[in-house]
Amino acid sequence: MKGRIANFSAGPAVLPEDVLREVQSNLFNYKGRGLSVMEMSHRSKDYQTIIDDAMLRARQLMELGDDYEVLFLQGGASLQFLMMPLNLCPDNKEPNYINTGTWATKALKEAKKIGKKMHLAASSEDREFRYIPREFKLSANPAYLHITTNNTIRGTQYHQFPEIGDIPLLCDISSDIFSHRIDFNKFSLIYAGAQKNIGPAGVVMVAIRQDMLDRIPDGLPTMLDYRTHVDKGSMFNTPPSFAIYVMGLVFKWLQDNGGLDWIEERNRAKAGLIYDMIDSTDFYSGTADVADRSLMNVTFRLPTEELEAKFIAEATGCGMNGLKGHRSVGGCRASIYNSLPVKACEQLATFMREFKKQNG
Amino acid sequence: MKGRIANFSAGPAVLPEDVLREVQSNLFNYKGRGLSVMEMSHRSKDYQTIIDDAMLRARQLMELGDDYEVLFLQGGASLQFLMMPLNLCPDNKEPNYINTGTWATKALKEAKKIGKKMHLAASSEDREFRYIPREFKLSANPAYLHITTNNTIRGTQYHQFPEIGDIPLLCDISSDIFSHRIDFNKFSLIYAGAQKNIGPAGVVMVAIRQDMLDRIPDGLPTMLDYRTHVDKGSMFNTPPSFAIYVMGLVFKWLQDNGGLDWIEERNRAKAGLIYDMIDSTDFYSGTADVADRSLMNVTFRLPTEELEAKFIAEATGCGMNGLKGHRSVGGCRASIYNSLPVKACEQLATFMREFKKQNG
Repeated sequence: MKGRIANFSAGPAVLPEDVLREVQSNLFNYKGRGLSVMEMSHRSKDYQTIIDDAMLRARQLMELGDDYEVLFLQGGASLQFLMMPLNLCPDNKEPNYINTGTWATKALKEAKKIGKKMHLAASSEDREFRYIPREFKLSANPAYLHITTNNTIRGTQYHQFPEIGDIPLLCDISSDIFSHRIDFNKFSLIYAGAQKNIGPAGVVMVAIRQDMLDRIPDGLPTMLDYRTHVDKGSMFNTPPSFAIYVMGLVFKWLQDNGGLDWIEERNRAKAGLIYDMIDSTDFYSGTADVADRSLMNVTFRLPTEELEAKFIAEATGCGMNGLKGHRSVGGCRASIYNSLPVKACEQLATFMREFKKQNG
Repeated sequence: MKGRIANFSAGPAVLPEDVLREVQSNLFNYKGRGLSVMEMSHRSKDYQTIIDDAMLRARQLMELGDDYEVLFLQGGASLQFLMMPLNLCPDNKEPNYINTGTWATKALKEAKKIGKKMHLAASSEDREFRYIPREFKLSANPAYLHITTNNTIRGTQYHQFPEIGDIPLLCDISSDIFSHRIDFNKFSLIYAGAQKNIGPAGVVMVAIRQDMLDRIPDGLPTMLDYRTHVDKGSMFNTPPSFAIYVMGLVFKWLQDNGGLDWIEERNRAKAGLIYDMIDSTDFYSGTADVADRSLMNVTFRLPTEELEAKFIAEATGCGMNGLKGHRSVGGCRASIYNSLPVKACEQLATFMREFKKQNG
């Protein structure tokens, strides 16, 4: 970690050092081919190998059946908020949403904006999104139920998913994908902006079950129709080729180190270091209900805003960046994604202990 | 150029060696900040400096007035094909297009697909898009006229733009932006996918004149409304941060070396080397009319397809890649974008002379 900060940024976020080293050494001349990956035609054999490898690894990590398509698209989760209702909600059905925070709110607003009969199946807004609703009520004729698996701003996370039988379950899993083992085959549509847990900004990974493609109405704009990208292997137009390359290396890093079991154990240990510190004192208070708190974004407050500012400033001075809470809620937030080394969490826990001693 | 191929790829394409070296040396630890640009929060001061610098340089290179907004978006030119008619064509007007090839065709098709009364003002399809139409006829109530300034597949380029008074002129300038000096202030909307002349894939630069924003109907999907991105300085959602960083370095490279006058002279010299070879013999025949041929994509045929295959294979063996014509038209194509060194064109011209001697 020599010369590197402890990067607690909520995204774009820390990447594995091994991946960065590999990207760096191949940046000017990829594996002796005489050019950078950034300079490769996306129609070249070398690039096809890179994207095929990334897709295969994504499928392996998700343990997806053959009935799913994996896509690498542009526009982030924000464009998925539009594509989802546009493609998967016929006019005679209602798209259902559970609102667990800022990003879930943006998703459901977009469904409303394009004229769909959005149904709010549940919300935790009554207590400032501090929890994940256990109860929900679907509409009469639901097209799907959408959830946000991890809420970066409020620090909550689904630890158990809604059971809704045959009704399609869709999720924005941007901020906790591959952080722990889940059954991806429960979902009809999964999407994840890469810039939190799986790569640099500029690519969103989508997995869609093939039966969903049959619902898509004809006549959608070309770029907004999932079938366009399925038919062309995510190369209808030039893909964000370098971001996909780096994402593939992150998948490889995960697999080479032991996959989802390994990362889950490591993530639980990392989060435990900080939550233990929060739980052991009244000086720090977590903002999420204990049962629903996130393995990825640890949100907490100090006794005063002045102390929070001091805490963030001193931590930055010690090489720990990105600890400021989201501007919409304030407080402190440690985003401790997959690639963040354990020792960064140890460093933060130690700092928290010392800071409390001196200011408590 | 040691260890590097001569990269004639049509895009993603060659980047300046100086830029790649700088990206490489800062990849692991950007200017001693302790993290990669890929790992920076887009809300951080360091990243804001990077994107501000790229925007400023873009404005300087285009010599844009204060009445323009510059945006860095995702989805490539293909998403612009949709956003353009959606935002800038009221229902009582017709979007006008000049069709000069594959990409122009895709643009006009998208306008039709979303129900606009697309008007074909001119087309060069009658002679396989080998030329740029001089004449055109606008519809009764034109919303705008759209042109494709350079046609990568057919090797044609606008050397003089249509004069249409107050009617907005829009252009896809993806493949020849900053290749030579033009008056950008003639256009009401300009867009360029970065992966040909100005950076890696994954970002499209848009410049829009502010009066165009007044035309945008309310109720558009959030991500497809230009005003969303104007209002948020291209950071409504996480931007393709690394691609923008590299693009900014390409702008700096251009400016540091002498700007558009320098690159135009260099591009004319580079293209001249290859066109002179084509013009000096019947062995090679250019596919574009001489008056309209492109400074960026030199398209040509050999006497037989067998000779073309041999030409491409032998050139590849000599370290010259990407010379195969687009799969839709065949033949040969040398894409000689800004970043391609002069000596790559010298090498190709010499190779063409030798190949003709041995096979002519």
